[in-house]
Amino acid sequence: MRIAILLYDGFTALDAVGPYEGLSRLPGAKVFFVAERTGPVRADTGYLDLVADTAMDDALGADSAPDILLVPGGPGQAEHMDDARMLEWIRAADATSTWTTSVCTGSLLLAAAGLLDGRRATSHWALVDDLPAFGARPAEERVVFDGKYVTAAGVSSGIDMSLHLIARIAGDGHAQLVQLVTEYDPQPPFDAGAPHKAPDAVAAAVRERLAGLSGRK
Amino acid sequence: MRIAILLYDGFTALDAVGPYEGLSRLPGAKVFFVAERTGPVRADTGYLDLVADTAMDDALGADSAPDILLVPGGPGQAEHMDDARMLEWIRAADATSTWTTSVCTGSLLLAAAGLLDGRRATSHWALVDDLPAFGARPAEERVVFDGKYVTAAGVSSGIDMSLHLIARIAGDGHAQLVQLVTEYDPQPPFDAGAPHKAPDAVAAAVRERLAGLSGRK
Repeated sequence: MRIAILLYDGFTALDAVGPYEGLSRLPGAKVFFVAERTGPVRADTGYLDLVADTAMDDALGADSAPDILLVPGGPGQAEHMDDARMLEWIRAADATSTWTTSVCTGSLLLAAAGLLDGRRATSHWALVDDLPAFGARPAEERVVFDGKYVTAAGVSSGIDMSLHLIARIAGDGHAQLVQLVTEYDPQPPFDAGAPHKAPDAVAAAVRERLAGLSGRK
Repeated sequence: MRIAILLYDGFTALDAVGPYEGLSRLPGAKVFFVAERTGPVRADTGYLDLVADTAMDDALGADSAPDILLVPGGPGQAEHMDDARMLEWIRAADATSTWTTSVCTGSLLLAAAGLLDGRRATSHWALVDDLPAFGARPAEERVVFDGKYVTAAGVSSGIDMSLHLIARIAGDGHAQLVQLVTEYDPQPPFDAGAPHKAPDAVAAAVRERLAGLSGRK
């Protein structure tokens, strides 16, 4: 069970690390952090580097092609919507994957690669309406399965996505085990994690902050 | 607002990255990843390195002493319960911090440093009963405030902790904004994130897997 997590400058760290934490506990899991080049890759805040251990060119051989591809989102995604090399790599990884997944605006990269044409998919709530411009059918749900394509909503939703996926792959009991190991018993102090739940002023502020981030022309 | 996140080999990545994602969005936040030496620090799965940009020795000067100290947990914590240098560093950082925080078994390191004597604190549910051996009073709650000490339960609970802390520091509205930006509207497919909620067999399996991990002699 080879799991490839794609990194690029300006990704959002929790998009990658949330699902990594669960998926790495799949039976027989081997996780690869893949980027154009090996070495540190800077997250969107500018304060954190994750290390890519595998270069794109080395991540698709017979011994390394991923069973699960995960594409995180983040402001840096917009820089890659026309990145022929990255999109070609995503298509090539998808060609042999069992599951192709994304978190947040990672779905826009999958869509730009042509993988979500006509498929139901989601993204960060503030950017989900940008999906149709790239051929996907937007679904305002936290985790969306359409065939082997699994897209999650904003940032933290990758944790929920990973539990759904673990249940499909290894059974409900293993997903529950991972949930309990990671003590995922959420108790946020507010119920403000979705735009219709948050105070109007908060939702408006976030909408303004994130408008245009997807790189839609 | 300087935020220092301590890394050591065998930390659990989500313990650090969950709260980082929220705390880095505090007004004026600057985040430092601190380790004994700068460079990659390996997480517990063996599949992920986060880069420490600051060495312990350079993290306590007049221009760098943290306002918030965060100590993540993970299996590697047990290796540092007698690590005089790390414990001394934690004490020194705490001496000038406004908030001293931990996730998961990071609280055992705070306790080993002598910072939680007589204080209420929590840890991963499977290891919270190890706290009294190091002077703390265990509380089976997801996030525990005792003065400036804020301890969170297992792994994913650091996300909830960060929202509580952001609310204290920057107000409820800013915490809600961070929650909405990160779309933290949890919808796990199971309600199995606490031992009394999970199936008995799952809880027993996790208990067995984690027993003795805290390094309690």
